[in-house]
Amino acid sequence: MDFSSFLTSLGTSFLVFAILMVLFAWLSAKPGNNVIYYPNRILKGLDSFEGGSRMRNPFTWIKEAWSSSEEDVIAMSGIDTAVYFVFLSTVLGILVLSGLILLPTLLPIAFTDDGEKSISHTTSNNTFNDLDKLSMGNIGEKSPRLWVFLIATYWVSFVTYYLLWKAYKHVSLMRANALMSPEVKTGQFAVIVRDIPPAPEGQSRKEHIDSYFKAIYPEAYYRSMVVTKNKEVNKIWEELEGFKKKLARAEAIYAELKTTGKPEGTRPTNRIGFLGLIGKKVDSIDYYSEKINELIPKLESEQKVTLREKQQDAALVFFNNRVTAASASQSVHAQMVDKWTVSEAHEPRQLIWSNLSIKFFKRQLRQYAVYVIVALTIVFYLIPIGIISAFTTLANLQKILPFIKPIVKNKAVKTVLEAYLPQLALIIFLALILPKFLLFLSKFEGIPTESHVVRAASGKYYYFSVLNVFLGVTVGGTLFSTIQTIEKHPNTIASILARSLPVNATFFLTYVALKFFIGYGLELSRIVPLIIYHLKRKFICKTETELKDAWFPGDLGYGTRVPGDMLIVTIVLCYSIIAPLIIPFGVIYFGLGWLILRNQALKVYVPSYESYGKMWPHLFVRLLASLILYQVTMFGYFGVKIFYYVALLIPLPIFSLIFGFVCSKKFYPSFHHTALELASRDLKEVPNLEQIFRSFIPTSLRSEKIEEDQFEDALSQVSQTGLSSV
Amino acid sequence: MDFSSFLTSLGTSFLVFAILMVLFAWLSAKPGNNVIYYPNRILKGLDSFEGGSRMRNPFTWIKEAWSSSEEDVIAMSGIDTAVYFVFLSTVLGILVLSGLILLPTLLPIAFTDDGEKSISHTTSNNTFNDLDKLSMGNIGEKSPRLWVFLIATYWVSFVTYYLLWKAYKHVSLMRANALMSPEVKTGQFAVIVRDIPPAPEGQSRKEHIDSYFKAIYPEAYYRSMVVTKNKEVNKIWEELEGFKKKLARAEAIYAELKTTGKPEGTRPTNRIGFLGLIGKKVDSIDYYSEKINELIPKLESEQKVTLREKQQDAALVFFNNRVTAASASQSVHAQMVDKWTVSEAHEPRQLIWSNLSIKFFKRQLRQYAVYVIVALTIVFYLIPIGIISAFTTLANLQKILPFIKPIVKNKAVKTVLEAYLPQLALIIFLALILPKFLLFLSKFEGIPTESHVVRAASGKYYYFSVLNVFLGVTVGGTLFSTIQTIEKHPNTIASILARSLPVNATFFLTYVALKFFIGYGLELSRIVPLIIYHLKRKFICKTETELKDAWFPGDLGYGTRVPGDMLIVTIVLCYSIIAPLIIPFGVIYFGLGWLILRNQALKVYVPSYESYGKMWPHLFVRLLASLILYQVTMFGYFGVKIFYYVALLIPLPIFSLIFGFVCSKKFYPSFHHTALELASRDLKEVPNLEQIFRSFIPTSLRSEKIEEDQFEDALSQVSQTGLSSV
Repeated sequence: MDFSSFLTSLGTSFLVFAILMVLFAWLSAKPGNNVIYYPNRILKGLDSFEGGSRMRNPFTWIKEAWSSSEEDVIAMSGIDTAVYFVFLSTVLGILVLSGLILLPTLLPIAFTDDGEKSISHTTSNNTFNDLDKLSMGNIGEKSPRLWVFLIATYWVSFVTYYLLWKAYKHVSLMRANALMSPEVKTGQFAVIVRDIPPAPEGQSRKEHIDSYFKAIYPEAYYRSMVVTKNKEVNKIWEELEGFKKKLARAEAIYAELKTTGKPEGTRPTNRIGFLGLIGKKVDSIDYYSEKINELIPKLESEQKVTLREKQQDAALVFFNNRVTAASASQSVHAQMVDKWTVSEAHEPRQLIWSNLSIKFFKRQLRQYAVYVIVALTIVFYLIPIGIISAFTTLANLQKILPFIKPIVKNKAVKTVLEAYLPQLALIIFLALILPKFLLFLSKFEGIPTESHVVRAASGKYYYFSVLNVFLGVTVGGTLFSTIQTIEKHPNTIASILARSLPVNATFFLTYVALKFFIGYGLELSRIVPLIIYHLKRKFICKTETELKDAWFPGDLGYGTRVPGDMLIVTIVLCYSIIAPLIIPFGVIYFGLGWLILRNQALKVYVPSYESYGKMWPHLFVRLLASLILYQVTMFGYFGVKIFYYVALLIPLPIFSLIFGFVCSKKFYPSFHHTALELASRDLKEVPNLEQIFRSFIPTSLRSEKIEEDQFEDALSQVSQTGLSSV
Repeated sequence: MDFSSFLTSLGTSFLVFAILMVLFAWLSAKPGNNVIYYPNRILKGLDSFEGGSRMRNPFTWIKEAWSSSEEDVIAMSGIDTAVYFVFLSTVLGILVLSGLILLPTLLPIAFTDDGEKSISHTTSNNTFNDLDKLSMGNIGEKSPRLWVFLIATYWVSFVTYYLLWKAYKHVSLMRANALMSPEVKTGQFAVIVRDIPPAPEGQSRKEHIDSYFKAIYPEAYYRSMVVTKNKEVNKIWEELEGFKKKLARAEAIYAELKTTGKPEGTRPTNRIGFLGLIGKKVDSIDYYSEKINELIPKLESEQKVTLREKQQDAALVFFNNRVTAASASQSVHAQMVDKWTVSEAHEPRQLIWSNLSIKFFKRQLRQYAVYVIVALTIVFYLIPIGIISAFTTLANLQKILPFIKPIVKNKAVKTVLEAYLPQLALIIFLALILPKFLLFLSKFEGIPTESHVVRAASGKYYYFSVLNVFLGVTVGGTLFSTIQTIEKHPNTIASILARSLPVNATFFLTYVALKFFIGYGLELSRIVPLIIYHLKRKFICKTETELKDAWFPGDLGYGTRVPGDMLIVTIVLCYSIIAPLIIPFGVIYFGLGWLILRNQALKVYVPSYESYGKMWPHLFVRLLASLILYQVTMFGYFGVKIFYYVALLIPLPIFSLIFGFVCSKKFYPSFHHTALELASRDLKEVPNLEQIFRSFIPTSLRSEKIEEDQFEDALSQVSQTGLSSV
């Protein structure tokens, strides 16, 4: 890629970005789009706009995002989101502090050197251009100018240590403040108990659990809830909810027809066969009402059966104070440690009920099996992509989907499709199938909470993207083309990597620019959700619930967002010395990202859980891993330059490991567990334990009737009065 | 070593053993030696002999040791000793079960094969003899008979897994029974708190600790004891105790002289200069009484100063129930985890007071520094040995110790000394200097308890002996002599090891035999302590206290005993297939060891601490490591035999790792911590918390006066009444 085509690509991206910004300014001002641009505020019962003024400057959002404090973010979107912003601003800080020193020193030094040109065997002489003149590739071998680059390598590392340390401390305090808050938080009074041994003869499982924990915590123990196998009851409940929605929809259509058409109205009908396309035509309202009336008693009897007969080897145990719950989740309870394992309960909405009853060693086994599968996926990722590509050739597609035949007959369309289908398959695989697959795998491990599953999936995606996208593109892409050059030198992995880096610098510059212009442009303007919402509103949605489902924004999606950012960090760090020009691009990526996502966090996305910053150690470790990759790469690259003082770089990865060790010793355990000094703080009110207990009952098991005769069941101790209000 | 010299060596060892047995039978029957042969029974206030009969059969001890139950061992010597016997009997079981199958099958198969002789390039043709005909070395390359040896390798492994699993379960239950015992045990009510941050302005350290823990454990918190720097006060206290002993001795001499000599007696005198050899002559009784009177007020004022001004950043915290103490020691207390670190307190007698106040990261740093030092010692152990050898050549010794000159003039003596001095240096280094050095290093790590220090030292010794004695002798000893043979084959480490094994089989057979005949002979007969005791009694001891010090036996000494046993296990396992003849030797070692040590545990040694079987995971891991070494060695040895199905051995080390993983997950955490279900058992009496608290006060800080005015001090809350009785 030469300089002009680089500028063209940059210009195009910026143009798209500008258009998206204008679109955003125009669209977000229309009140009809408020549910797309301000859903988080609407759901929290706030005015769409700050101050509530009808007309607004299209740039107000920048001021609002910029001036918002961390407390605002925590209030609107929780600790997890605030932690994500600490991550963004830490990386931004690292890049700004690095850039301030590196750009004014390294660029002139590289530009004024002509050592590499005079030596014939340059690694990138065929791609030499203006951009490369600004990179370390332009420095001659053994040049004393390399000293400056070596010192710069140290500078970036120490800036990273300093800011990471500050950030870890800050996040730790943030988590501490949240955990010791006087608000009553349901998850802080409960623990998950798994691997419960079979109850002794003559004792129900619930009695067994009660007697076990009452003996250990005679004063603090409140009660237990045995985990049940809810597959059947969930199915019936979902069916029932589906019919309820359909009934509401049919009634809405009927009411609409009444007003628009004949006053007596036309009763809507539907077919009861496959997908509503075939079968007998029936009156929808009557049909759904009938179905609902059939299912309600079925649900109730299934609820009873579930509670009585489908009890599993796991339970939730409730305590009347936070300290006991926090300390119980950290303690070994049974002499055989694969029995009575206790862990934090987290929030009710996070619990993955079906994973709770998986046995101890089965969980271990699944975990390692998943690791192996992920490792194989990373190594052989080309195989699934190949399969996908094979299925998406035009010939195949025509066979599977015959109706596209007429479109393909057009020659221009055919050419474009044939050229882009493989890339499309890759993008679909990376962006859609892979995250879902990794999420599925992480859930399969037997992890009990949603937030942990997201973290696990994000970690897997990180390894995938760094190993495949970064190393794959860098090393793999140039391995064959530079094979002859490499043969002249000792070809260790580090030197192969180092040799391929400069060739790809321009590629990654473009990649980062594309990411922030197009990625964040789409993010802020929310064009895709907007279009989907309006289409749904027009053609599908009939009831308020359906409308809400159509605009509900979901959460920030850390599972894919974090690995994406991590890939950028890795790229920018690894190129920061070799091609310092990438630093401003990184600064824009994280600066723009911070600003736009601040807006999105405050106004758009609705967090789906709160893990009190448990994401941070995960982010920290991967940032540190990227730093070490950078340090090893630099070691290799200085080696390629035959710079004998390269040995001075050896301490750097060791420093990084020591730094990581110290941080993990000092901070990590209190992210893994809740520190007791926090849990011991006073609450502002006496916790309503009954309410806490009830909040953990899965929706499908909640009964709307008052029943007094369930005293042998899993939830037996619940006094059912008042349950209907839940 | 040929067959006849092997038999000679064996015969000599057995002769020594027989003589020692006869000596034991004769000496132990004499009542004057009871303090040597039955000290543990005497100290427990029991009759020396079971049943108390005066005359006894010299073989009664065998019956008594054999018929003693595990409960007897626990009652007389504690859980730790019982765990050691589980280890001995487990290894014995493994060897017996292996031997029952291996000896009748492998020996005939090896003896009847003549494959190796017909092939010219045998690795040990120069040492080929009758013993070697019974080993795997006699099997020809690629012989199908190797299948039997391969199956035998599996048999030994699975026998080991089975018995180790049973043993781990058994030990776990034993620990559980001890921990949930209704007896009040002081250590179960206290925790060690380290890394206490500086107290806020206007608060004493004790108030700070009290308020911190009272907030977390409002009901269970009892009180705290701030750790002080006791170096000064210990020094004064030891000086005082020394003078007290000397005074008692002087008075005893005076009393003796009164009865034997003149009725008015001669008052003993001593010189006050260096070592009592020079200086003014004074009346001992007057002099020591005066010194004691001087030191008592000095000690008291130093005690006050220590309590008030030498408080450290650590404390002991006491709770009024076992569950809270057990759960506190497992929980993260502070958000910054390098503050307020809490761990189990163990028994007062185990606490290493001076290690408690070492800071968090200083401990980490020391630990890693020690690891590095130990690794270097293992690698370069020849250097210290070389230095010692250099100093112990006769020429040097004559310079340092001129008085040995006349002895050395005798030619015969000189020859013997010159031949044995280097070996003597090695033995001195291995048996005396190295364990002390490793113990010192382990203490230096900052470990807070004695039992843990012993485990750490034992672990280091294990690595040392396996790596140096076993691998060093095997590989190192034959590396140079067989260098040409090896060059013909691919010389991986495994194959070098495997190649050198058969050559050394006879050497190790002799080694094991020597170990059990001489080692256990000396152990049972206690000739050395007996001689020392009688010498001391005759020439030095004057008072009862001095006499008791002279015969006090100490504990079993796990720090050196366990690594010694482990070395034998490793040797026997690694040779079990190659030279199955070693199995009976191993059986005798562990069988005889079990019997003799049973006697010693019941009657002789007095345990110096009780860690409730924390030694077991340590033993388990090292046994498993030896098993894996055996499996890898066998893999290498089958490779040398060019047996293509050797790949079938690859799963074995993997099985071992999985087995270790499962055990560590299932059992280990409840060895590291106390399971809460145990701590929650009822006690048979209400614990006297005041007494528990007082038992933790270091002797040098115990005051014999009643003082009411110490309320700002570290031990301030102690009501001093009744302290004199402690």
